[in-house]
Amino acid sequence: MFDSMTIVGVGLISGSFSLALKDRGLVKNVIGISRTKASIRKALDLGLIDETLPLREAVAKSDLIYVAIPVDATVPMIEEILDLIGDKQIVADAGSTKHALCTALSNHPKRKRFVATHPMWGTEYSGPEAAVREAFNGRSCVICERAKSDKDAVETIEQVYRLLGMNIVYMNADAHDLHAAYVSHISHITSFALANTVLEKEKEEDAIFDLAGGGFESTVRLAKSSPAMWAPVFMQNRENVLDVLNEHISQLRKFKSCLEKENYAYLWELMENANKIKKIIK
Amino acid sequence: MFDSMTIVGVGLISGSFSLALKDRGLVKNVIGISRTKASIRKALDLGLIDETLPLREAVAKSDLIYVAIPVDATVPMIEEILDLIGDKQIVADAGSTKHALCTALSNHPKRKRFVATHPMWGTEYSGPEAAVREAFNGRSCVICERAKSDKDAVETIEQVYRLLGMNIVYMNADAHDLHAAYVSHISHITSFALANTVLEKEKEEDAIFDLAGGGFESTVRLAKSSPAMWAPVFMQNRENVLDVLNEHISQLRKFKSCLEKENYAYLWELMENANKIKKIIK
Repeated sequence: MFDSMTIVGVGLISGSFSLALKDRGLVKNVIGISRTKASIRKALDLGLIDETLPLREAVAKSDLIYVAIPVDATVPMIEEILDLIGDKQIVADAGSTKHALCTALSNHPKRKRFVATHPMWGTEYSGPEAAVREAFNGRSCVICERAKSDKDAVETIEQVYRLLGMNIVYMNADAHDLHAAYVSHISHITSFALANTVLEKEKEEDAIFDLAGGGFESTVRLAKSSPAMWAPVFMQNRENVLDVLNEHISQLRKFKSCLEKENYAYLWELMENANKIKKIIK
Repeated sequence: MFDSMTIVGVGLISGSFSLALKDRGLVKNVIGISRTKASIRKALDLGLIDETLPLREAVAKSDLIYVAIPVDATVPMIEEILDLIGDKQIVADAGSTKHALCTALSNHPKRKRFVATHPMWGTEYSGPEAAVREAFNGRSCVICERAKSDKDAVETIEQVYRLLGMNIVYMNADAHDLHAAYVSHISHITSFALANTVLEKEKEEDAIFDLAGGGFESTVRLAKSSPAMWAPVFMQNRENVLDVLNEHISQLRKFKSCLEKENYAYLWELMENANKIKKIIK
């Protein structure tokens, strides 16, 4: 499908994307771009990329340029790449926010060569070592503002994600950011806050962590996530995240009130209502 | 080790305990007790138990009686069982709270035949079908008030848990309940509240759940847990849970404040601090 592809960022998402394309024979040569030399070396060692080049040369050689770096750095990076490409090349991102990016690019003369995507997969790890095979298989991928991309560009990207086993969902950028706040960003914030809650207590109590088998690991797992990746996400999506966070705090206060008032019936009702999540998360 | 053992409750914990003992040849015959006939049938089908008997007959036949039912039902059940046993039999529980139970039993004439235990393992599922092989292997098990149990009783129970692959931790009941609030109970409450947060929103937004790959599943997993099991835990441990919940809400408010004030530096600091959980949860 591609003779050459550039991945900007050589980490969790771009590395997994590269592996998935390579495993399927969809790309011959992958060029990696990173500010960090150690990451490039690691990505070469792990076979995520075949070579590294300066951005301008990498873009010139590539059919697809796939950008997966922190969302605040994504905006100027994609503007710079769009300035460099011709009429056949495709640029796509994998960022967790879409409104800021799509707004910034809306008047770019090459906007139509860009496809805004968000494969809904991730782990708490980052860097080239975090890349995993078959990461995207069975997951959803959001494509935003489909109509603003050239038909050939968006169809190529859709085909790639489908060959990777993804289910494609279409949304406008605002709807994406709202939904992402609910199904991803708030989970990260609650995990970070839960870790801080427990770490705060650890100052007083040393033995506490012998016990961390009772559900704690899965709930706090995301607290290991990279601030470099997530702080810009929360900031770019701050209005939606604040809405959800306010709702979440008010839901927690309901539990608090039940316990304070020993209102067993309402406590039970809150939990039974939460059980409805079974119909969504199998 | 045991000719016959009774499990009171035939669900996630007791079923997994039974399987682990059977797999190691540590028990010949397992008697199951449950108020629910369908659960008994299922437990027989799954090989978790060999027979069912009325409580009095089951206890009379058993070397060990292992109680794993909701913590509010545990107190009267263990009082009743202790009234029935002789000087060689052993009673143990697997409950998530210890203060209320140990206090209630403290003056029972057979207190010394009881061993208060809490194997730190669980899933969001309940019932006989939820039992899994090798569930406890590699996990910690808390034993409370070791000195209040007869030496032979507590040493037998310790040996069983060790043969199951568990690491034993000793605590008094108050310390256990405090630590359990931090490493288990608060995780369940945040999960329940997160599920309610998202379900609240679902009324407005239908498409939201195509996207649930971004960390949501693991954070919300525990919201599928049984109210029958967990409401009594929260109530029995309400003072500790309230302390932790207050701290958690105040940690969430720090994130809220960062977003409201666009305080990027402090947001980063909060997340970097949360990353320290890496040293605890591998």
